[in-house]
Amino acid sequence: MPSNDDVHDDWKNLATSTVSDALDRLGIASQCVGIEPLDTTFRLCGRAFTMRALPASAAGGSLGDYIDDVPPGRVIAIDNAGRMDTTVWGDIMTRAAVKTGIAGTVLDGVSRNVDRSLDMGYPVFSRGRSMRTGKNRVARDGLNVAISIGGARVNDGDVLLGDCDGVVVVPAARESEILEEARRLDEREANIRRALESGMRLDAARRKWRFD
Amino acid sequence: MPSNDDVHDDWKNLATSTVSDALDRLGIASQCVGIEPLDTTFRLCGRAFTMRALPASAAGGSLGDYIDDVPPGRVIAIDNAGRMDTTVWGDIMTRAAVKTGIAGTVLDGVSRNVDRSLDMGYPVFSRGRSMRTGKNRVARDGLNVAISIGGARVNDGDVLLGDCDGVVVVPAARESEILEEARRLDEREANIRRALESGMRLDAARRKWRFD
Amino acid sequence: MPSNDDVHDDWKNLATSTVSDALDRLGIASQCVGIEPLDTTFRLCGRAFTMRALPASAAGGSLGDYIDDVPPGRVIAIDNAGRMDTTVWGDIMTRAAVKTGIAGTVLDGVSRNVDRSLDMGYPVFSRGRSMRTGKNRVARDGLNVAISIGGARVNDGDVLLGDCDGVVVVPAARESEILEEARRLDEREANIRRALESGMRLDAARRKWRFD
Repeated sequence: MPSNDDVHDDWKNLATSTVSDALDRLGIASQCVGIEPLDTTFRLCGRAFTMRALPASAAGGSLGDYIDDVPPGRVIAIDNAGRMDTTVWGDIMTRAAVKTGIAGTVLDGVSRNVDRSLDMGYPVFSRGRSMRTGKNRVARDGLNVAISIGGARVNDGDVLLGDCDGVVVVPAARESEILEEARRLDEREANIRRALESGMRLDAARRKWRFD
Repeated sequence: MPSNDDVHDDWKNLATSTVSDALDRLGIASQCVGIEPLDTTFRLCGRAFTMRALPASAAGGSLGDYIDDVPPGRVIAIDNAGRMDTTVWGDIMTRAAVKTGIAGTVLDGVSRNVDRSLDMGYPVFSRGRSMRTGKNRVARDGLNVAISIGGARVNDGDVLLGDCDGVVVVPAARESEILEEARRLDEREANIRRALESGMRLDAARRKWRFD
Repeated sequence: MPSNDDVHDDWKNLATSTVSDALDRLGIASQCVGIEPLDTTFRLCGRAFTMRALPASAAGGSLGDYIDDVPPGRVIAIDNAGRMDTTVWGDIMTRAAVKTGIAGTVLDGVSRNVDRSLDMGYPVFSRGRSMRTGKNRVARDGLNVAISIGGARVNDGDVLLGDCDGVVVVPAARESEILEEARRLDEREANIRRALESGMRLDAARRKWRFD
C-alpha cells in the first residue's frame, strides 16, 4: 500500500472537471457517475482505503471495526453496489474519522446522520441519505481490494478527488502523466478565462489557446 | 383517533436513525425510503393525519378542502403513489397549516412553492418538487385511512418522526416498547461518543458498550 | 426570431405554479418535468435560444462556438435528451454568458463547475451535475430549432420561466392569452392569501373567490 505522503500537493488545487479532461485525453474512463457531495463546498483529496460490501447472509453481519486502522489522510471508499435503502456510514464513523484525520468518505451507496457530516465539515460523497443501518443488512466482502464507485474502478491507494461536481479516480499506476496533462489543461483554461476577462470573444480565445 | 396530546416529549429528541435501530430490533419495517426534507435542518414530530390520492377520473377531481379540520399538532401525510409530475401540496396549504399549528407534511409525491415552506420554516418531507397542480390530476380516495409512504405503512394516528435523514413511522400499537428501546439505544450511543471523545478506540468503545 | 425586447415585464413577477395553472386552463401541456434550479433562490425569465445535441459520431464533435452570437437577455436551452453522464455547460460558458448578459441556461441534461454558477448567481436549471465534458461525446444537431426540455416542447423564441419549482414554457404563439389568464389567477390567489391572513377558513375563502 503506498504511503499517503506521496499525494502531490497539486491535486488539491485541480478541479475534478480539469482532471476529467486529462483522463479523457489519456483514454482513461475513471469519472464516477451519480456520486455527489452532501454539500457543494466540500472538497476531497487523498488515497483510497477501499472496502467492498455485499448483502448480509441469513446469519447477519456488518462492515466490522476497521476505522481505527485507517491511516490519517486516507479517503475511505465503500462499494455498496449503489444500494439506496441501507446506510454504510453515520455519526459515530464521522466522529472517529475526524478524530483520526481521515480525509473523507466516498460511497457507492448512502449515509445517515448527514447533519453530523455537515456540522463537522467532514466531506462525504454518495448517492444520498437514509436512516436504516447496514447492520445485518450488509457484510464486509473485502478490504483494500479493487471496487466500483459510480461505474469507475478504484484500486486501494488510487488518488480520489472530489468537489462540487462529484468524484474522479486517479489510478496510481498512471498518476504522473495524468497530473502533467491536468496541469497543462489547467493553465490553458486560465489563459482563456483571462482572455475572456480582457474582452476577447470566446471563439477567438479558444482558437488562440487551441482549446477544443 | 388518538388525541395529539399523548405524543411523548421524548420523541422530539430522538434521531430517526436511533428510532430506526429500535424498529430493527423489534422486527418492525417502518422506515420510509426515498422521502427527504426540503431542508436539512427540518425536524418533524406528530401524529399522522392520513390521506390517500388516486389519479383523477375523466370527470376531474381534487383533494378537497380538508385542512380546516386537521387538529393542531398533527402531521399531514398524503400517499400519492410516488408521482413526480403532479403536486399535492403548495403555498396556500403551507400558509393555512402554519396558521392552524399543523406540525408538518409528509408526501409520497412532490410539492410546489417550495420557497414558501423554506421561508416559513414549515417542514415538508417529499420526493421533490414540481409546479403542476394536482387539480383534475388527482382525487381523494380516502381520509384517515392506512397509506403507504416510501414503502412504509402509516395508520392514521401513528407517530411520524422526520429529520435530516428522512422519515420513520412509529406504529401507535407498539409505541411504548419502541420508545423504550430507542431510549436505551440513544443512551448507549451517547456513551460511545463520550468514550471516543476521551480517546478510546472505536472497537474498544463498542465492545465496552456492547454496541454491535 | 422575435426580439427580446418584447418579453412582457409581468412574466418576471409570476410564479411558475401560477403560469402552470394558466397553461392547464388553456389546455397547454408545457410544464418541464424533472428540471430543477441549482439553487432554490434562482429565477429565470427570457426568450429561448435553442440547441439540440446528439451523441457524437465516431469522428468526435462538440456543441461548437455559439455563445458569442447569442443576444443579451436570451435563455440558452439545450436538449441533451436527459443524459446524466455528459455535461453540456460549465465554467467558461457561465463566464461568457454573464459577460454577454444572457439571462440563464436550461438543460435537459447536466452541467459542470456548478460552483461557478452559484458564485456568480447565474441561473442554471438542469437534471443535476457531473464533471465529464461533452467534447467528443455530444455534437450539435440543430440551432434555433424546436427541442424537448423535461417533456415540454420549446420553440426558439418561446418564453422560459424558472423558479424554485422548476421551469415552464410559454409558447410565443399563445403568449398574450396565457399572460392574461395567469394575471387573473395571480390576483385570485392574492385574494385568498389575504382572506386567510384575516382569519377566514380556507374552504370559505376558496368558495368566495371561486378558486377550485
